[in-house]
Amino acid sequence: MLDYNVPGGKLNRGISVIDSYQLLKEGSQLTDDEFFLSSVLGWCIEWLQAYFLVVDDIMDNSHTRRGQPCWFRLPKVGLIAINDGVLLRNHIPRMLKLHFKEKPYYVDLLDLFNEVEFQTASGQMLDLITTHDGEQDLSKYKFPVYQRIVQYKTAYYSFYLPVACALVMSGEKLDNFVEVKNILVEMGTYFQVQDDYLDCFGAPEVIGKIGTDIEDFKCSWLIVQALERANENQMKLLSENYGKSDPACVTKVKAVYNDLNLQSVFAEYEAASYEQLISSIEAQPSKAVQEVLKSFLHKIYKRQK
Amino acid sequence: MLDYNVPGGKLNRGISVIDSYQLLKEGSQLTDDEFFLSSVLGWCIEWLQAYFLVVDDIMDNSHTRRGQPCWFRLPKVGLIAINDGVLLRNHIPRMLKLHFKEKPYYVDLLDLFNEVEFQTASGQMLDLITTHDGEQDLSKYKFPVYQRIVQYKTAYYSFYLPVACALVMSGEKLDNFVEVKNILVEMGTYFQVQDDYLDCFGAPEVIGKIGTDIEDFKCSWLIVQALERANENQMKLLSENYGKSDPACVTKVKAVYNDLNLQSVFAEYEAASYEQLISSIEAQPSKAVQEVLKSFLHKIYKRQK
Ligand SMILES: [Mg+2]
Ligand SMILES: [Mg+2]
Ligand SMILES: [Mg+2]
Ligand SMILES: [Mg+2]
Ligand SMILES: [Mg+2]
Ligand SMILES: [Mg+2]
Repeated sequence: MLDYNVPGGKLNRGISVIDSYQLLKEGSQLTDDEFFLSSVLGWCIEWLQAYFLVVDDIMDNSHTRRGQPCWFRLPKVGLIAINDGVLLRNHIPRMLKLHFKEKPYYVDLLDLFNEVEFQTASGQMLDLITTHDGEQDLSKYKFPVYQRIVQYKTAYYSFYLPVACALVMSGEKLDNFVEVKNILVEMGTYFQVQDDYLDCFGAPEVIGKIGTDIEDFKCSWLIVQALERANENQMKLLSENYGKSDPACVTKVKAVYNDLNLQSVFAEYEAASYEQLISSIEAQPSKAVQEVLKSFLHKIYKRQK
Repeated sequence: MLDYNVPGGKLNRGISVIDSYQLLKEGSQLTDDEFFLSSVLGWCIEWLQAYFLVVDDIMDNSHTRRGQPCWFRLPKVGLIAINDGVLLRNHIPRMLKLHFKEKPYYVDLLDLFNEVEFQTASGQMLDLITTHDGEQDLSKYKFPVYQRIVQYKTAYYSFYLPVACALVMSGEKLDNFVEVKNILVEMGTYFQVQDDYLDCFGAPEVIGKIGTDIEDFKCSWLIVQALERANENQMKLLSENYGKSDPACVTKVKAVYNDLNLQSVFAEYEAASYEQLISSIEAQPSKAVQEVLKSFLHKIYKRQK
């Protein structure tokens, strides 16, 4: 179960803990112990992610994950996968206790993981009630809704959590880093917007998959933007064709996206986000924190996959 | 979701926190604050229980719970119930943080709930791999297996957790109460044996339901005892008729139980358990702790429902 579900991802979240901790130390070499402990926190995030994915795939009735069948799809597993997800999750506090129990910041780590898990489950709830509620209804797909889902469902655990782990391990109190949290959550939103954009406009041979957000009736940034800008005729086209697996329908939706020039809308959004993020980052008092945030931003800015 | 899943039980676990805390104070009246805080811990256990039940009912494909359809059976809910369960669970550390953050024992409460949740999920895993694994196979139903499932799946959170909460709130360190834990886990096992016994031999009008453990191929104490004692012919009857919904099959299983005199086997087990528990309890150095344990025991000893 562990071998099937924990490895196989890109490990971005886990590795970010070590990278961020290194940057917070401003160049001085990590001791073996620091390297080990930041790796443990990185793995805790990867286990958390594995838990979210196992359970999310059941609720979304998904078929594949990371190039293999979803765990619950294996004949011998089925809905026992729910308990397996819970066990993955329950190992996080065990790892924390084993390696951090004597640290002054042990309780801060427990609070942090608890808070972020709650935020992610709240994001799942928002997602499920917005996008899975009976018949398809585009009227709910508005930007504030989109933003809130993305922030809670993805940004806290993927962007804030790795940096927060590194800050806690550096002896910082997270209450003093509310603005850092906001910046990282913004970056997480920006990352998801890119993801949605590439799903439709990215090159499949580069992103490594063929996007199906249109077919899946996803609350994607693109449909949200299209609905904001569509005239009556375009609106009709979108509501008749969004969420259908027929390729002719997908083509019609993409035609509306093109007519509305969503590629330029995205380019503008991307440039504006970048400006905004850089100026928030440069307002941070600590140079080391600036470096952490910039390193995150430059990993994702203008990515093609 | 909360109103549907949290209330409706007997609240035994929750109320035990307050009762135990009261006994640990050796008669002196609880302050309003103490009453409130022990009630919060009681509710945390009830929320934990609600989470376990919501998720367990999905994995067991159950139909009803506490006299109403299982939460995931509601048409508007379905597998979103998994995330609802997770949200129930995620509120426990939120309640603990809100009310106990400044207490010296806050981290002990977090550790306790984490440990007990892990034990319960481990018990679920044992249960699922023993009793839900493909075709029916009675050869796995042996007493040590039974005991381990019951201890992990039920006893830790139902018997140990309420007392442990009261001890922590009284300023005690749980490391000093390992024997108390063992006694409570024994009591939890004894309680489950009674439950299994009453499922078959209890009066339906008293226990409030008609038992179906035989039909459901449950790893019940009775079948474990029967398999230990059956001759070749009885063994054949059990394996041909256990786990079938046909009333004629159920009758045949019950006939074997009667031939093997399981009612006396139970009476002996009950008396021996009681003796053993009382003597372990009286070996406890603290009179107040003895009172807590005896009060638990007398709530369940020779119960008819
Ligand atoms: Mg999904
Ligand atoms: Mg999902
Ligand atoms: Mg996507
Ligand atoms: Mg069940
Ligand atoms: Mg079960
Ligand atoms: Mg029962």
